[in-house]
Amino acid sequence: MLGLEGRVRVVIAGVRPEIDCGAFAAKRIAGDRLIVDADIFIDGHDLVAGEILYRHREDESWRRSRMKFLGNDQWRGDFLVSKPGKYYYSVEGWIDRFGTWRSTLTKRIDSGQDVRLDCLMGAILVEEAATRAAPDDAAILNNWIRILRQEQDPENVKEALGDELADVMARYPDRRFAARYGKELCLMVDREKARCSAWYEIFPRSCASEPGHHGTLRDCEALLPYVASMGFDVLYLPPIHPIGHTARKGKNNESAAGPEDVGSPWAIGSDEGGHKSIHPKLGTLNDFDRLIAAAKTHGIEIALDIAFQCAPDHPYVRQHPEWFRQRPDGTIQYAENPPKKYEDIFPLDFETPQWRELWEELKSVVVFWIEHGVYIFRVDNPHTKALPFWEWMIGQVKDQYPEALFLAEAFTRPKLMYGLAKRGFSQSYTYFAWRNTKQELESYFQELEESGVRDYFRPNLWPNTPDILPEFLQTGGRAAFMIRFILAATLGANYGIYGPAFEYCENAAKERGSEEYLNSEKYELKHWGIGSGLKDFIARINGIRRDNPALQSDDNLRFHATDNSEVICYSKATSDLSDIVIVLCNLDPFHKQTGWIDLDLASLGLDARRTFQAHDLLSDGRFLWRGSRNYFELTPESLPAHIMKVRRLVRTERDFDYYF
Amino acid sequence: MLGLEGRVRVVIAGVRPEIDCGAFAAKRIAGDRLIVDADIFIDGHDLVAGEILYRHREDESWRRSRMKFLGNDQWRGDFLVSKPGKYYYSVEGWIDRFGTWRSTLTKRIDSGQDVRLDCLMGAILVEEAATRAAPDDAAILNNWIRILRQEQDPENVKEALGDELADVMARYPDRRFAARYGKELCLMVDREKARCSAWYEIFPRSCASEPGHHGTLRDCEALLPYVASMGFDVLYLPPIHPIGHTARKGKNNESAAGPEDVGSPWAIGSDEGGHKSIHPKLGTLNDFDRLIAAAKTHGIEIALDIAFQCAPDHPYVRQHPEWFRQRPDGTIQYAENPPKKYEDIFPLDFETPQWRELWEELKSVVVFWIEHGVYIFRVDNPHTKALPFWEWMIGQVKDQYPEALFLAEAFTRPKLMYGLAKRGFSQSYTYFAWRNTKQELESYFQELEESGVRDYFRPNLWPNTPDILPEFLQTGGRAAFMIRFILAATLGANYGIYGPAFEYCENAAKERGSEEYLNSEKYELKHWGIGSGLKDFIARINGIRRDNPALQSDDNLRFHATDNSEVICYSKATSDLSDIVIVLCNLDPFHKQTGWIDLDLASLGLDARRTFQAHDLLSDGRFLWRGSRNYFELTPESLPAHIMKVRRLVRTERDFDYYF
Repeated sequence: MLGLEGRVRVVIAGVRPEIDCGAFAAKRIAGDRLIVDADIFIDGHDLVAGEILYRHREDESWRRSRMKFLGNDQWRGDFLVSKPGKYYYSVEGWIDRFGTWRSTLTKRIDSGQDVRLDCLMGAILVEEAATRAAPDDAAILNNWIRILRQEQDPENVKEALGDELADVMARYPDRRFAARYGKELCLMVDREKARCSAWYEIFPRSCASEPGHHGTLRDCEALLPYVASMGFDVLYLPPIHPIGHTARKGKNNESAAGPEDVGSPWAIGSDEGGHKSIHPKLGTLNDFDRLIAAAKTHGIEIALDIAFQCAPDHPYVRQHPEWFRQRPDGTIQYAENPPKKYEDIFPLDFETPQWRELWEELKSVVVFWIEHGVYIFRVDNPHTKALPFWEWMIGQVKDQYPEALFLAEAFTRPKLMYGLAKRGFSQSYTYFAWRNTKQELESYFQELEESGVRDYFRPNLWPNTPDILPEFLQTGGRAAFMIRFILAATLGANYGIYGPAFEYCENAAKERGSEEYLNSEKYELKHWGIGSGLKDFIARINGIRRDNPALQSDDNLRFHATDNSEVICYSKATSDLSDIVIVLCNLDPFHKQTGWIDLDLASLGLDARRTFQAHDLLSDGRFLWRGSRNYFELTPESLPAHIMKVRRLVRTERDFDYYF
Repeated sequence: MLGLEGRVRVVIAGVRPEIDCGAFAAKRIAGDRLIVDADIFIDGHDLVAGEILYRHREDESWRRSRMKFLGNDQWRGDFLVSKPGKYYYSVEGWIDRFGTWRSTLTKRIDSGQDVRLDCLMGAILVEEAATRAAPDDAAILNNWIRILRQEQDPENVKEALGDELADVMARYPDRRFAARYGKELCLMVDREKARCSAWYEIFPRSCASEPGHHGTLRDCEALLPYVASMGFDVLYLPPIHPIGHTARKGKNNESAAGPEDVGSPWAIGSDEGGHKSIHPKLGTLNDFDRLIAAAKTHGIEIALDIAFQCAPDHPYVRQHPEWFRQRPDGTIQYAENPPKKYEDIFPLDFETPQWRELWEELKSVVVFWIEHGVYIFRVDNPHTKALPFWEWMIGQVKDQYPEALFLAEAFTRPKLMYGLAKRGFSQSYTYFAWRNTKQELESYFQELEESGVRDYFRPNLWPNTPDILPEFLQTGGRAAFMIRFILAATLGANYGIYGPAFEYCENAAKERGSEEYLNSEKYELKHWGIGSGLKDFIARINGIRRDNPALQSDDNLRFHATDNSEVICYSKATSDLSDIVIVLCNLDPFHKQTGWIDLDLASLGLDARRTFQAHDLLSDGRFLWRGSRNYFELTPESLPAHIMKVRRLVRTERDFDYYF
């Protein structure tokens, strides 16, 4: 330590955001201002000052943003992150020698002490600053130096304590022995869609216009207007690659497939190709490029499934047997979760001595599809592949393509789920599908809202998936689907549904106690009609999301009390409170529920003494509310929820109230 | 990253204790077991295992302690820290390949699957372990290999799932691709006195047996039986060095000292010497060595004051003017906290270009006194000296003398106070002197109990100091002194009082609104009698502390509810609950208070259905209590508190209850 500079007295600690001591990047959206907090302090009575240092990409030089004192040794600043990609930031602090002088002198003058020596000390500080200053500022400073050196008039000395000198001096601080926070923290900035997106999942092979036919990418293209009309902006396709023949599963996951059986799209690869190929029955790469382009005209992005595993007849198995785990009898280990066996799938062995080649090849799969215009990837079971691989792969891809987004389908234990998010996934599936009661929902979303989690984990809420038909949907009828949709689309700025099965309220499970769909699309062709079901309801809610910025971010979720345990109430608001939405949802799909909510008005910036209008954007009903306690009555068979926009009183004339 | 080993799939995170990402050492006491927590997890379904790596001193090789699975990916282990000094620890985790095999095979057998290939895979795992095993264990393993390779009898295979094979296998894990936590964390282990100590502060110059005389170290020696009779084990002396003559302060801190005035002991140094000298009127180094030896025979350690500052006539000022800050007029900057001036004190300039020499010299002061048998230092105003200096100095001294302890007298802002503790101070003064109400006390001690703080900050509670006569003591009479003493001595395992002024209930302040003592000993000689005041009361409470291990640690403090806001209730207990003490204290020095406590019985391991005895160690009253709610009545003029030892029923005969 005696070898270092021992005179750096300023301490910088507690910098936020910081994930796991800086091991991982926090996340923000292009256009955000990143708020950085730090403790900056020093021994003794000197004042300190601090700045954020930040840059886009590591090779840029640092830019600086001044921090403000919050009290209790805490400082806060911010900077704009304008572009997707990595930003780096740190904090610097130094002794504010001029500020200290100014504060000391003020106290001396106030207590009538002799300040001649202080004026001289001040002059020296200003002289030093003048050597660092731009010519214009140096001229101003020189004027003050003259005053401080020559003037004995206490009134003039007092002027030196004013803001003019202080403002110029603040631009030329004495950074001798400045302390730099010991780490450069990383921020991953994503584009807007990482913050807000509405996903629709559909199996392309089920998109044929006629029953009994294998759907194609061209059929998908024809479906785009329907998807757009419901207001979705991400169309997610399960794997579109050739499907293995060996050990192919039959309908309802039966172990022996018949010759007609189409197999699971997640059993990827055959002699027709692997992860960079398209299933011949779906079409060609050319069709795919057309689909991407057509989707764009509808404001829709195509998301592909990244499932890093192989059917036994995937070309990798022949070309790179060393990428798979061999069993003592010379066969390759298939996937299993004992006692369950998935003989149609070979997992990749991330402990292979050829892991470098494997990593590079898997990365090339993602890059291949990016080069075909896909920038969103839903990653299948990332929690069964090595975490260091994801960290490397996502980092590499985003260095080259900062617009790329990755959704982690990690239905697994919380630390592993969070661990994947820390390693770069832009969004993550959650436990939402299994959080049904008010207490479950509140405590789970409060956990996700905690800033430590929110800084790196972006929930994407799915009421169903091809693997998950929750019990609530199996038993609650149409109202259950409405309830779960409202919750997903308003609790989460990012959410999705598994396609027609949702809007047609498909609720038949394979067997009692199972969340598998009966006759699941995962193993057979389906034919869904178009144009009925919950389509209009979904379109209306997506429209409400589009119109209300409050619903486009997860930053400002707050729960409010109700006196009925079947009714949940929460609000979302923009940070400036210009848009406030209050959702009141009946969690019971069978009965009308009534009661009183008790709004936390202060958090919404509402005055308890003034009437405001709660405008239900679902029913278009308008309620005049005043104070925190208000009555509700929610009937599941008609509409189980209110999605209320708060409209405040603008001005009052004799008989009219105006709301905005 | 492709250059590193990408096959390390195990993740280790969230290691606790860890202070500021490992920048600082946590603290424990010799004889403790350090409990280490970590998250250890991996992708997929493999089981993992983990160990703590630890060592005393950096050059030792690692020892290992197995961790246990707690659920939710959390692991816990511990190790014994037997000696004072630094320990280092980290965590290692690896795939438990045998455990994974065992668990898989169990599931397969349960579901009736063919396990022949599994037996072969198991045999290979055991063969690998056998190459690592000691000869005896290898023989056992070889026997199992034979069974697994040859035996098709499912009953024998089941035996291989038993504990015998697993226990041997656990001793020879396959640590290929083991993950090591990225940091080696440091633990500072102190001797027992860092955990529990009772301090008594006295000005040696006021110890003369006759009024009007300047006390000496010999007089101090004569006072040792008195201090010991009260039960104190640390006798802390304000600076014993020569006192400056230049700008010496007079009585009551008047700026002009008369010829008789003795000056402040903190204005250190004159032509008679500096920080390594003894004030001639106090005696000689020889007297000091005698005092140390005599104190030891009474079970008392002498603590010295380390005040790194100089009177204007300190030899350093002449020898090292570069260690002080020069003003533009060539004079040296005296200490001030504008507008207050301390012209009798020159602060050291920690920004001097000669900071290395300064640091070394200051360290040599501490080492000088250690070599005279002083191992406890009360450090004056450490928050006005550079933090990097303390970190270096304490680290250096403790490397050489691990028994050395440092108490930080940092009455300053919380982050600076905590920052000093992180940099090595063994104990710290606190805000206790200004926490009077039940709410203030509970919230402050809950903050200190939070494990993040408790890991590095050891409070030392002082109801008064020569600088602080709190308003509560000024106005509350004798009962106020009793209340504050009980709180200090039972809320804190470490506490202290500023000597005779406390036991004589000296409560005259210099002026209204000031916490300065009138005619403060800091500026004049005092003569205190011996043998009256609160002596017996203090002795009794120190005796209770000595008899009850629960009061000798701050690990297990818990507050309990009372229905009277003037009465606070808390318990302390040993971790095995063999000693439980419940304190019930009336915070109102003027009125009797009555009410009901509501004990958290579960936290004390007490059965709500069984009677227990609450034995008041202060009054020797014994109360039979049952359940959580019990009545109290506390009269400040007699005894404002109960200090109850919980005695549980051992057995019942017809008419007798036995308690231990």
